Parts: sequence; C-alpha cells; structure tokens
Amino acid sequence: MLQPPPAAPGMREEDIDTPALLIDLDAFEHNLDRMAALLADGGARLRPHAKTHKSPVIAALQAARGAVGQCVQKVAEAEVLAWGGVRDILVSNEVVGAAKLARLAALAPIAQVRVCIDDRAGIAAVERAARDAGQRLGVLVEIDVGAGRCGVAAGPAAVELAQAIAASPHLRFDGLQAYHGKAQHLRLPEQRREAIAEAADHARRTVEQLRQVGLDCPIVGGAGTGSFVLEAASGVYTELQAGSYCFMDADYARNLDEAGQPVTLFRHALFVLATVMSAARPGVAVLDAGHKAVAVDSGLPLVWQRPDLRYVGASDEHGTLAVASETAAPKPGEKLRLVPGHCDPTVDRHDWYVGVRGGRVACLWPVAARGAMA
Amino acid sequence: MLQPPPAAPGMREEDIDTPALLIDLDAFEHNLDRMAALLADGGARLRPHAKTHKSPVIAALQAARGAVGQCVQKVAEAEVLAWGGVRDILVSNEVVGAAKLARLAALAPIAQVRVCIDDRAGIAAVERAARDAGQRLGVLVEIDVGAGRCGVAAGPAAVELAQAIAASPHLRFDGLQAYHGKAQHLRLPEQRREAIAEAADHARRTVEQLRQVGLDCPIVGGAGTGSFVLEAASGVYTELQAGSYCFMDADYARNLDEAGQPVTLFRHALFVLATVMSAARPGVAVLDAGHKAVAVDSGLPLVWQRPDLRYVGASDEHGTLAVASETAAPKPGEKLRLVPGHCDPTVDRHDWYVGVRGGRVACLWPVAARGAMA
Repeated sequence: MLQPPPAAPGMREEDIDTPALLIDLDAFEHNLDRMAALLADGGARLRPHAKTHKSPVIAALQAARGAVGQCVQKVAEAEVLAWGGVRDILVSNEVVGAAKLARLAALAPIAQVRVCIDDRAGIAAVERAARDAGQRLGVLVEIDVGAGRCGVAAGPAAVELAQAIAASPHLRFDGLQAYHGKAQHLRLPEQRREAIAEAADHARRTVEQLRQVGLDCPIVGGAGTGSFVLEAASGVYTELQAGSYCFMDADYARNLDEAGQPVTLFRHALFVLATVMSAARPGVAVLDAGHKAVAVDSGLPLVWQRPDLRYVGASDEHGTLAVASETAAPKPGEKLRLVPGHCDPTVDRHDWYVGVRGGRVACLWPVAARGAMA
Repeated sequence: MLQPPPAAPGMREEDIDTPALLIDLDAFEHNLDRMAALLADGGARLRPHAKTHKSPVIAALQAARGAVGQCVQKVAEAEVLAWGGVRDILVSNEVVGAAKLARLAALAPIAQVRVCIDDRAGIAAVERAARDAGQRLGVLVEIDVGAGRCGVAAGPAAVELAQAIAASPHLRFDGLQAYHGKAQHLRLPEQRREAIAEAADHARRTVEQLRQVGLDCPIVGGAGTGSFVLEAASGVYTELQAGSYCFMDADYARNLDEAGQPVTLFRHALFVLATVMSAARPGVAVLDAGHKAVAVDSGLPLVWQRPDLRYVGASDEHGTLAVASETAAPKPGEKLRLVPGHCDPTVDRHDWYVGVRGGRVACLWPVAARGAMA
C-alpha cells in the first residue's frame, strides 16, 4: 500500500505530518546548477545516479541542465525511469537472471539501455535476452579499479570480454565501467587523489589496449560525489556518475578539502522532518523518527541548525536526542529537521518527497522507484 | 509505486526473483504454535507487536492462536491493521499532533484503540481528539522501567497522570505501558533477569499505588521476544508484546540461555533470498542484496546453512561474501538465503512476503503497513 503524502502544496512547513522527507528546493537547485557549472567546460559529462533520488522528476531537472542520461543499479529502477520519460539509462552493474534481462531488453524500444558485465556467462545471457527481444543492447565491461567488489581485472581480461561483446550479434561494446566506490568516502584529499589516480590508470591502460585491438571505447564511466572532480580532470573518464550531490548527506560532508576544511561544493538539501513525541526525562527528547525513517548505515543523522541537540540513538521508530544542559529541552510537538547520514537509503524509506521553499510546501513528488530492488 | 511481487504461487523457490522476502511457513507456524503453548497456562496474554510483521494476515494467524490484539508504534500502522480486520489495537507509545490523534480516534468505531501518554499535555490532546470524534478512548500511562527513552517515572508521577486520565470525560484509564526495550538484547540470562525484575518492581509498585487511590489497572503491558518469559512469570504483566518471535532474527539468536547456549525457543523463519551477481575475483562473491534489501542496524545478515560463506560487507545494493578458501565460490545466478540481523526494518524494506513450503511458493502476502511511519 502506498502511504498517503504527509503534506499538501501551500501548507506551512510546521504543519507537515512527520516523519516526512523534505527537499529544500533552493539548496537542491543550487546543487544542480553548481554541478552543471563545474562541468560546463565540456569535458566529461554528467550521468547522475538515480539510486540516490529514484525519481523521473529529478532526472528531468538534471537532464535540463545537461545530464546525458541516468544510471541505475536495478532493472526495476530502469523500468520506473523509462516509464517516466528518461531516454538514456545505464544499469551500472551486472544483471543476472533471464527474467530480469528480458525486462531490461523490453525497455529498449522506448529508451537507450545499457548494462555492465564482468564475465563470459554474463555476455551470453545478455546476448540471449537481446536476441529474444529482437533488440541490440549496449554493454559496458566493468573493471575493478580498486573497490574490490564487482568487475573483471583491468587490462587483457577486460579486453577479452570487450572482444566477445563486439562479436555478439545483438550486443554493442560501448565502453568501460570503472567506478571506485570506496574512494568516495576517503576523508583526506590526498587519499582520494591517490585512489582515483590509480583507478584512472587502470582505465587508461585498458582503453589503450582496446584501441590496439581495434575497439573504440566511447564511454568510460565512474565517479561519485566524493571524487568526481578528480575523474573529470583525468582526461580518461567521459561520464561521471555522481548521485548524492543533489542532496548531500552528513557523511559526504565529513570529506575534507586541501585546507583541511569540509568540502562545501554542495548544500544539504534533503532532510527528514521529525516531531518530538516525548520529553519526560531531563536532558533527553525523543523524536518520532528512528532508523525506519532515516538510514543509519553511514552514521546517525545531525539535527539541522541546532548545535545544542545531538541525535544519539536510533531505534526502529524512535530517535533519542541528547539536550545540552544549558538548553531548554524541546517540547512534545516541536518539529526538527534531520540531516541524514546517508541519503540514498533514507530516500528509499519514503513514498513522497515534500519540496519546501520559503517555509511553505511547494510541491509533492513521488519516490517513484522506492523499493525497486529487483 | 507498489513493486510487483517477486514470485507466484506454485513456483519453485529457485525461480523466485531476487531480492525477495521469504517466510519459511513451517518454521513460522512452529513459532506461532510454540508461543501459544508457552502462554497456555492462562497467565499473561499475548498482544504481538505488528511493528515486526506489518500484516493483517499475520495478525489474524496470531489471533487464531489466542492473541488478545495487536500493538503498533504508529497511527498509520493502526489504520492498516484496523482496515484489515484487527479489532483490538494498542499504540504502544505516545502520539503527538492533532491530525494524527484525529486519525486514531476515527478508527474507534471499527476497533478498540488505545494509546499511551507520558505527560499532561498528551492527556489533554487525546481528550480533545476523542471528544471531537464523539468517542471514548482507552489510555495507558507509559512508565520508564529502565529503557531510558519515553515514559514518566514510575510511582507517584504515573499515578497523577492516571488520575488525570480517569477524570477526563472522553478517556478511560486502562493501565500501564512498562516496556524495557534494552533488556531484550542483553546477552546473558542473569542480565535479562535483573533488568526485568527491576522493571516488574517499578510496575508492581505503581499498580499498588494506583489501587490505593482507587484506580484499577487492567493492563500492564510490555516484554519482547528476548525477555517475555520473565515478564510472564512476574505476576505483574498482563499483556506481552513480543513481535520478533514469529520470525526470529540473527540478533535475537545471539541471546544465551542459562547453559550458555543460544536461546532456541523459536526458529529462523524470515529470510532474504538473494542471487550471486558477480564472482569475478577469487575468494569473493557479490550478492544483489545490500542494506536497501536487508537491514544492518543490528549486525550483518548470516548466510543460511552455508558456514563456508560470510556476508562481510553491505553497500546500498550489493552484499559482499567472503568465501572460505576450501570452497568453490558460488557462481553468478546461484541463490542464497540470508538471515536478517534485524527482522523489523528488513520487513519494512519490502512490499511482499513470499511464503514457501517444501521448496515451492505457497502464498503471497502484502507487507501492508510497509512505510506506515506517520
């Protein structure tokens, strides 16, 4: 059952039912514009990751600012985007299973769809699905550039897979997927620089070896919000897959720049609005938003613009705040904004975005691909 | 958008699309029957917590085995249960906000609904909502019995609130909520015994003081899967609010009994079925289920009946398995059952339960109150 929206356009922010997922539209648009400006030099292009926002509406706002298409992790996400008007979609990892691949191929008449592989069995499976659907699908070879998760080794092993793709009648070799997930959250700029330099070397070497066997590599994709400036400057990456930049979570805000300060390219634009439901004990207030409402896998949320309040404990439906001694405890009924530790899974907990501007609800957008995990 | 079910009745387990939320029906029914047998002596009765299962179907199966009603944490959960045929519902914490309380009061014509308060403002707010709806609502005073979250202090402060409830024209004082959440996960039996003995003392003392001012206390509610045997034996608790017993998660299975062995009252009945999507590197396999599919707030999931495989890393959509050196790595396409570290939030990630028995899909049940967090 879809949950009813917690707000209606025109309503004041303090009247929104809680927990609710808020987008501060001014900060959000700043982030979209900022990214477009950063990439305006015409080098690598942005293919934002929809695993963050799960919304065709947001995809359209990104496309209007120059995004070349969207990334997704799951076929179910690709479906929601394609049905919602997105015309260029990369599934940025492997898809296993005939039923899933058939669903992906069934989208090809309405969208350019691409998928990654990292072994020969994967190539055969995608070829079968494309053939059965009477379609030709674009395929990227995923190479492991240091993340140690999916991906074949860079170099000859990857070239071999690319050749097998190129030789498949219903497939087209479109390039390399070279994402270094772990690098996104390395705190120090020199750590991120080193990790991405290594990733770019792997990709560069593989592109050269592909050229030597006569294979063009139109796409080299990767990068995220924590490192995209480095991939953009590498001269190797052609598509940047940052997702979180539009919202910015508390964890990305812990990355430091060259001056040892938090990186501030983007603003916090995503919040979980919560209500104090109990303040029966001194020094403590309890919110109606626990880890079913705000993801805690990358740390607890922060209380927005309230340095006197610390979110110290998340249970399923309760969040416990420690109240600094010099402060009057917030009273039951008081509403507070939380900055999620991690945006992507927080968004996935909610059915609706509530867009706010100037203290009022400006729009409601469905989290259309919420739970689209298949 | 509701996600389509990952299976159809009659299908073989290995054909279920993944990630999928499985109920092993034999183990599940064993758990339901076991709990009914444990409480058959007619002392405290079971009021299972629907925050675990979020399903009117499961509530009906529990009612058929003697459950007196259901607990919920949220008004939105109460709505889904009441609309699905549950006739006795306790919101086991405070509800703040006129709109939410109006929704709760609107259920009173079709279900017995009760709610907790822990301050005077709460009483006034519930009274207003009941009056406006032309209903009389049952109210429990929540006392803090050691969890240190919500709840007024036991004793005189609680009695004072009970008297205020009894004096409210549209409210009925129905008893005490005395839940000790933290005690559920204390690993050693003597730790749990001590914590619940203290909680029961708080409750007993308050019940006596209520009697002294002429107030009956028909309900003393609390307990969870980790401790309910103790509350049942206390002679004070009348309703036991265990939820997880029907599914059993990996974290509860880490509780030890008097002999230093894991407590084995209940069987693991809830699983996330996942598929290996990549095995490109030796010693590693990657599953299509990360922390968007299986909650990790209480530890990583276990791989069911595969001691050679360890789930060592959860990212949003990927789960990384370490493969013991003596084992052949599972191949892409192979399906594995995961035992969630924590059932409640895992269930909340999915739209459908897939009930399996004898290797086949026996039923599909919606997770009807998924995302019902308001």
